[in-house]
Amino acid sequence: MSVLLSISIFPLDKGESLSPYVARALKVIKESGLPYHFSPMETTVEAETLEEILELIRKCFQALEPDCNRIICNMKIDYRKGSSGRIVRKIKSVEEKLSSSF
Amino acid sequence: MSVLLSISIFPLDKGESLSPYVARALKVIKESGLPYHFSPMETTVEAETLEEILELIRKCFQALEPDCNRIICNMKIDYRKGSSGRIVRKIKSVEEKLSSSF
Amino acid sequence: MSVLLSISIFPLDKGESLSPYVARALKVIKESGLPYHFSPMETTVEAETLEEILELIRKCFQALEPDCNRIICNMKIDYRKGSSGRIVRKIKSVEEKLSSSF
Amino acid sequence: MSVLLSISIFPLDKGESLSPYVARALKVIKESGLPYHFSPMETTVEAETLEEILELIRKCFQALEPDCNRIICNMKIDYRKGSSGRIVRKIKSVEEKLSSSF
Repeated sequence: MSVLLSISIFPLDKGESLSPYVARALKVIKESGLPYHFSPMETTVEAETLEEILELIRKCFQALEPDCNRIICNMKIDYRKGSSGRIVRKIKSVEEKLSSSF
Repeated sequence: MSVLLSISIFPLDKGESLSPYVARALKVIKESGLPYHFSPMETTVEAETLEEILELIRKCFQALEPDCNRIICNMKIDYRKGSSGRIVRKIKSVEEKLSSSF
Repeated sequence: MSVLLSISIFPLDKGESLSPYVARALKVIKESGLPYHFSPMETTVEAETLEEILELIRKCFQALEPDCNRIICNMKIDYRKGSSGRIVRKIKSVEEKLSSSF
Repeated sequence: MSVLLSISIFPLDKGESLSPYVARALKVIKESGLPYHFSPMETTVEAETLEEILELIRKCFQALEPDCNRIICNMKIDYRKGSSGRIVRKIKSVEEKLSSSF
């Protein structure tokens, strides 16, 4: 099984400079040991079970909770039965279609 | 504390008629006993802890897992310290601003 | 054709009380004359063309631009060929499935 | 001004293998000439105006419309007054915070 999570989490009560808070969530993701891809608008992580993903979401909130009063979190989960490794394969698959379409 | 979840969950391998699957997730939400608001594109639920919300997400997936191979789930969490009841108050608060702006 | 838009738009540089800004966007949506559904986390609107929806997004930004430095906007579009009126029918369809499942 | 769009667009009536359709949207984004970042769950693009972003969304739909009956599109816009180039700077900024936090 492969469960992909795309997550963006930030406080709403800390003004418009969010990178220190985004860095805290990214630290949690790095320390999970799960494969991840960091992009300008969100971070994508892959796990083999939904439970690992939900646990990761919980820890990201814990990293912001102590000093943030209001937290917004956007998430997308792409859950698929079958083998893992999609965090890499999905990009490859699209790129192949793209190159053959020219 | 008040944790609002807006969730939309559906299978990707069942064609374009999704209402039977959306109904399964909604049944889970109803049975949780948490206050909820059902709208055409997603369902909003309010809990007093993040744990209740994560547990609800897990149960929504369980309702689709048996016969769905690929599941997409979009979620937004609005976490705020303070009293609960926002699922009702947020709408009221915007409507008041709106009526006084005319 | 039926194009459903679910939209949430708010400034990031105005602290954690967002209802005055959400009200401005909702005013734009009301004035469009399109059928809409307002819920605690986002507003859903239905149009018969994508162009109407994109124009509406543009106007929502215009309502916040004058005094907001940073604006976050989350959107989901559900585009479907066929007759319109889904903003009402989608809810009915799920509710029917739900009641027959007990 | 800098307008970041994170977009994921796919048909709902074509089964669970989506990469040929994702590739079409990515082709539109590449051909726009705007800086972009392709990740496993969505693509991020940066423009200097909202109009460019809305035009790009319109073209992504046009790439799927001919043979897709139902299309789902998730988007997030991060609009910020000031200089562009954030598609690169946002990642750098978080990475700096992250490395100094160890």
